[in-house]
Amino acid sequence: MTKKLGRKLRLGMVGGGPGAFIGGVHRIAARFDGKFDLVAAALSSNAEKSTSYAAELGIPRSYGSYAEMAEAEAKREDGIDVVAIVTPNDTHYAIAKAFLAAGIHVMCDKPMTTTLEDAVKLADDVERSGLIFGLTHTYSGYPVVRQMRSIVESGLLGKLRMINVEYVQGWLATPLETTGANKQAEWRTDPKRSGPAGCLGDIATHAYHLAYFVSGLDAEFLSCDLSTFVEGRRLDDNVQAMIRYEGGAKASLWSSQIAIGNENNLNLRLYGEKGSLEWNQENPNYARYTPLGEATQILSRGGGQLNAAAARLPAGHPEGYFEAFAQLYDDLAEQITARLEEREPSVTAKLLPTCQDGVKGLRFIEAALASSSKQSAWTPLK
Amino acid sequence: MTKKLGRKLRLGMVGGGPGAFIGGVHRIAARFDGKFDLVAAALSSNAEKSTSYAAELGIPRSYGSYAEMAEAEAKREDGIDVVAIVTPNDTHYAIAKAFLAAGIHVMCDKPMTTTLEDAVKLADDVERSGLIFGLTHTYSGYPVVRQMRSIVESGLLGKLRMINVEYVQGWLATPLETTGANKQAEWRTDPKRSGPAGCLGDIATHAYHLAYFVSGLDAEFLSCDLSTFVEGRRLDDNVQAMIRYEGGAKASLWSSQIAIGNENNLNLRLYGEKGSLEWNQENPNYARYTPLGEATQILSRGGGQLNAAAARLPAGHPEGYFEAFAQLYDDLAEQITARLEEREPSVTAKLLPTCQDGVKGLRFIEAALASSSKQSAWTPLK
Amino acid sequence: MTKKLGRKLRLGMVGGGPGAFIGGVHRIAARFDGKFDLVAAALSSNAEKSTSYAAELGIPRSYGSYAEMAEAEAKREDGIDVVAIVTPNDTHYAIAKAFLAAGIHVMCDKPMTTTLEDAVKLADDVERSGLIFGLTHTYSGYPVVRQMRSIVESGLLGKLRMINVEYVQGWLATPLETTGANKQAEWRTDPKRSGPAGCLGDIATHAYHLAYFVSGLDAEFLSCDLSTFVEGRRLDDNVQAMIRYEGGAKASLWSSQIAIGNENNLNLRLYGEKGSLEWNQENPNYARYTPLGEATQILSRGGGQLNAAAARLPAGHPEGYFEAFAQLYDDLAEQITARLEEREPSVTAKLLPTCQDGVKGLRFIEAALASSSKQSAWTPLK
Amino acid sequence: MTKKLGRKLRLGMVGGGPGAFIGGVHRIAARFDGKFDLVAAALSSNAEKSTSYAAELGIPRSYGSYAEMAEAEAKREDGIDVVAIVTPNDTHYAIAKAFLAAGIHVMCDKPMTTTLEDAVKLADDVERSGLIFGLTHTYSGYPVVRQMRSIVESGLLGKLRMINVEYVQGWLATPLETTGANKQAEWRTDPKRSGPAGCLGDIATHAYHLAYFVSGLDAEFLSCDLSTFVEGRRLDDNVQAMIRYEGGAKASLWSSQIAIGNENNLNLRLYGEKGSLEWNQENPNYARYTPLGEATQILSRGGGQLNAAAARLPAGHPEGYFEAFAQLYDDLAEQITARLEEREPSVTAKLLPTCQDGVKGLRFIEAALASSSKQSAWTPLK
Repeated sequence: MTKKLGRKLRLGMVGGGPGAFIGGVHRIAARFDGKFDLVAAALSSNAEKSTSYAAELGIPRSYGSYAEMAEAEAKREDGIDVVAIVTPNDTHYAIAKAFLAAGIHVMCDKPMTTTLEDAVKLADDVERSGLIFGLTHTYSGYPVVRQMRSIVESGLLGKLRMINVEYVQGWLATPLETTGANKQAEWRTDPKRSGPAGCLGDIATHAYHLAYFVSGLDAEFLSCDLSTFVEGRRLDDNVQAMIRYEGGAKASLWSSQIAIGNENNLNLRLYGEKGSLEWNQENPNYARYTPLGEATQILSRGGGQLNAAAARLPAGHPEGYFEAFAQLYDDLAEQITARLEEREPSVTAKLLPTCQDGVKGLRFIEAALASSSKQSAWTPLK
Repeated sequence: MTKKLGRKLRLGMVGGGPGAFIGGVHRIAARFDGKFDLVAAALSSNAEKSTSYAAELGIPRSYGSYAEMAEAEAKREDGIDVVAIVTPNDTHYAIAKAFLAAGIHVMCDKPMTTTLEDAVKLADDVERSGLIFGLTHTYSGYPVVRQMRSIVESGLLGKLRMINVEYVQGWLATPLETTGANKQAEWRTDPKRSGPAGCLGDIATHAYHLAYFVSGLDAEFLSCDLSTFVEGRRLDDNVQAMIRYEGGAKASLWSSQIAIGNENNLNLRLYGEKGSLEWNQENPNYARYTPLGEATQILSRGGGQLNAAAARLPAGHPEGYFEAFAQLYDDLAEQITARLEEREPSVTAKLLPTCQDGVKGLRFIEAALASSSKQSAWTPLK
Repeated sequence: MTKKLGRKLRLGMVGGGPGAFIGGVHRIAARFDGKFDLVAAALSSNAEKSTSYAAELGIPRSYGSYAEMAEAEAKREDGIDVVAIVTPNDTHYAIAKAFLAAGIHVMCDKPMTTTLEDAVKLADDVERSGLIFGLTHTYSGYPVVRQMRSIVESGLLGKLRMINVEYVQGWLATPLETTGANKQAEWRTDPKRSGPAGCLGDIATHAYHLAYFVSGLDAEFLSCDLSTFVEGRRLDDNVQAMIRYEGGAKASLWSSQIAIGNENNLNLRLYGEKGSLEWNQENPNYARYTPLGEATQILSRGGGQLNAAAARLPAGHPEGYFEAFAQLYDDLAEQITARLEEREPSVTAKLLPTCQDGVKGLRFIEAALASSSKQSAWTPLK
Repeated sequence: MTKKLGRKLRLGMVGGGPGAFIGGVHRIAARFDGKFDLVAAALSSNAEKSTSYAAELGIPRSYGSYAEMAEAEAKREDGIDVVAIVTPNDTHYAIAKAFLAAGIHVMCDKPMTTTLEDAVKLADDVERSGLIFGLTHTYSGYPVVRQMRSIVESGLLGKLRMINVEYVQGWLATPLETTGANKQAEWRTDPKRSGPAGCLGDIATHAYHLAYFVSGLDAEFLSCDLSTFVEGRRLDDNVQAMIRYEGGAKASLWSSQIAIGNENNLNLRLYGEKGSLEWNQENPNYARYTPLGEATQILSRGGGQLNAAAARLPAGHPEGYFEAFAQLYDDLAEQITARLEEREPSVTAKLLPTCQDGVKGLRFIEAALASSSKQSAWTPLK
């Protein structure tokens, strides 16, 4: 006999105060499929701001600090099932630790931490807790990306040889962080809040994760050249890397925030012995698939060629970034619900990036920093 | 002193039972920006189905019929502010009439009715009621479409000369309605439920509305050739039309559901004396703008070139169909809230298509049917 | 025993003086594959100009008039095999007639004549003469266009239902012909030199021919609306038409010279019961092919999917307009050579447009003019 | 008083026998603009084959060896002005040396030689001879590529920061060279004929040259990882490199012949402080230009935005690979003609790649081989 939860999941949020970008995205994504109620929050380190913004957003319980929130929610019978952590990178670790200690599942923005050491410790905490920990590598939530993963897994491309992945933006081509008018630019180029990686931690990690997510390949070594092109900037704004995977495949990775004319150009190409796949985030509902010796095909979200599982709309009705993000929340909902209903979650729900992915991301960041500081020497990732 | 509503709006829904497509879209769209609670519904003509599906969706109040629902909700202090009508076309009129009579605002799927006569009557009802009536011509909710409208309005294209609008699909290239496996195909090709227009009413009206929405031009005459290419089909599946607007501009319109290889290809191009604009729904975050004698520009959602008002995400983060649909609900929310708060709604909110747009749509359908039956004679639309 | 010609063909040219556009294109195209020597010409109606320009181009024999040239070349043992007529439209008929009378094959620019009457007479002359007459509908020379023709012929699309063909330019969006600085604009908008059709004769005929060339369908009726959007212009600059083919297929045709932002946008889409094809002249080395129920394929010139017969380069090495034009000269060379060698020409060479295509083109022009003047009445083309 | 040559230039050819690809391309390119007569050749190392093929092609003088040809032509009053060398890479040096010694200008296919040593010696020979030496880096002949060079030179992009250049093909994804059916694959993967570089010498050099040609930047160091993905292949088939230019700009270069789905995908992107440019060889008539903070523009060949100097056709009429190749012959013709007419050649003609470009190419090849063999160590290029 199946147990039925029969209620929405209760979500809390730390961070995401007025003016924050990603907090609002998390809220829309969590609301998308109607499976969460946002019932508690510590939106800002300023208690007053937190309270008034929570009221404005219709969130019933507002706290002055995440510590207080973790403690109080853990005690309530109707306390939150899960917390979304959407604060700057340097605070993720402590916050996550607190909620895990309180027995509350966690959805954490990326990068997971600012050091590999913290990432490893956090992964240990998660394992010990037995709780669910999701990491919002958004781009793995696109239906077409997940189908590319299936195609690779099914062997249609044969053994992979070469990957080319790029995540290229242009919005930091000038010293925007010095204008006083762009908070996003400020914290992203501030080593105190972002850690030692700029473009590397902000977007190159997404590219690195995406290549891993779709190919299933673990990187063994990388050779990296970090640049800071904008004078006075304190962190890297351009990342070039060559990667060697276990089994012989290789990758070129380029990530930049000074490439004028690029908005959010995340582009993935995979080449195997029997075929290839190409995908671009700015036109995310399609992929190009070329079987060896045949014509290139345009795969469309939900078309006969791609299993439609994750798509909410018929092909030709574009889905976008929010839908990808909402997919991760949907995966989270399924994992938590399955646990509460004492059953196995769906296979798809397990695609939600985990703290192990977070550790891989930090390994990538640390290896890239190390390689770049040693004349791009090939540096191990394990 | 500004009055503040301080609560979410209460939404009801008629139609949208299990298996329906557009009902689910309305629910996601209404939830998107967190301004509505779906609190009452008559989801199906089958009362039992309605009740169990409402429970599944977490809708507190379920009714056996729309009439019962209109009556009961009107009496409650916490009755619905607005009802979404997402039933087949032939029932829109009666349902809308009932809710208007009960003093409840209406959000209606398109086409508004199946006859021009009903459309005109409904428009009269709306006017007499003084209530808000929104019509979900989804594509007018795309941020880039709205910016194209602004560009035209601002005079950047000069006097318009020629418009080319297409809405082309391929999913009805075979007699899908006879397979017993596709409800969408069945009611869309059934004159009883869809009225006398097939492709014409289903999608050509969207194309016609979009051209009007962006250009601001009223059509005076059209010459139309309707075809039914799939043998045995009872309604048209291909629409060719030439249109003459007031002031001398012209348009070519092509709409089809038998054009294999097209998913949901809604494409609009406008040519004026000083420039042109092009937009495609399958890549909706961009438009092409060519000023006379200059290079073509790629306008991007929210870029410096397009006022970012309606966009929820920075450029390069794709938005899609749901966001466009949610925009219409956002407009609706703003209009209702403004009224409850006794203030003027925002200018943008007034872009929500109205019952007058519904009347125009039916005029288009009737003129197209008339022209096609008279050897494509030029037929007036007023 | 096969006879071998063992020499290049001798080509003459009428028209193509200094400043002419299409004359130079014919010369490059004729030279492309090394099968012609340009040995005689009457390049201009001004004898002096003719002589000095012929010297500059290294053409050995220059004449003061086409009549003189036809007579003199006919008498020489080493006289020209074929003449290229590249003068304004109104002179094609008389010149062609003269060379046919002199027993010389003809390659004529399009449209063939300015009236249907002349076209029919010329076709009679050609038939009586038994000579080869080629018409340079350039776009039928593209390898991918010819492969689309094969695909249709092979039945891969099934019975055709709908065609959409556009030939859209923007260069005449202003009254360029009144500036005194653009000869091309002047003669193309001058009824005396171009006949009664502007955009219609200049480019819509290409679109019409292309649809016919690829589909193999004969048009039965058309309904047309011609416009002149630029004030003071003496000929149409925008053509909208609906076409009915024998067997039930239909087409929408749009051609314009006022569509700002379009350079030479010739676009053909064909939809049958089993599949579709799409091609665009500005990216001519690829076509899109969608078999019913399968993914869209990108067909590439010379790929395994398209017979490589006509391509001179491996796929990925773009060919363009000159190569397409050169293909027509290659076809002409093969036809003349085959006759001189007393053998059948290759099947491909017979794809060279003929005077019958010219007659069809004039029928289209006359029917479009007639329909447009009678409120777009459906007008027969036969 | 200007001297006028008044005759076509006399061209000879070494290599380009039956079945050769690039020989035929050189012949079409040389004929394109009507400035050369191909009058002498040693088409094959097999004298009989040479003679019969020369006869078939209508080349008056055929020689059994290049040495004989150089000697004989040097003695004739009407001897060749210039020789085209289109043999496999390992023979370029000796042949070029022989013709230079005979006082004959040279047009040489790339890569110039198989070793840097030979390249340097050849450059010395050229300098001593005072003769003209052109190297057919085809892609530098595209009009849009040349305009991109002008745009960079003019400072519109500001100081360059980052370049991304790719030259990616898929035709060698399988061991085609072992099938006995593909000569092109055989010599390209044979170290004896191609030298120590496979994909590196065949196409990566084109990419490297193109980046240099457009940016004007000299590379200082590179870090390279060469791969051979196809089992049994004797040369590299995949090239990844990071490049550092003088002045601080950097580049990522990827070249491959195993990337299924790519035909001849040469793609160049340049990012400066004030703007960016992007170009793709498979759609060569357009470039994307983004000025800092403005919309991306589509630059079109010959449009107002790009100086039309080199284009032979109005925009929208595609030009391709042959036209680019013909441009190099046009440059060569202008340089030789100017010398014979005792005047300065046009500025454009000097864009023809030289033996110095050939030396740079070999430096790139040798540095890449060295870096790859030393764990991708940064290796100087000077």
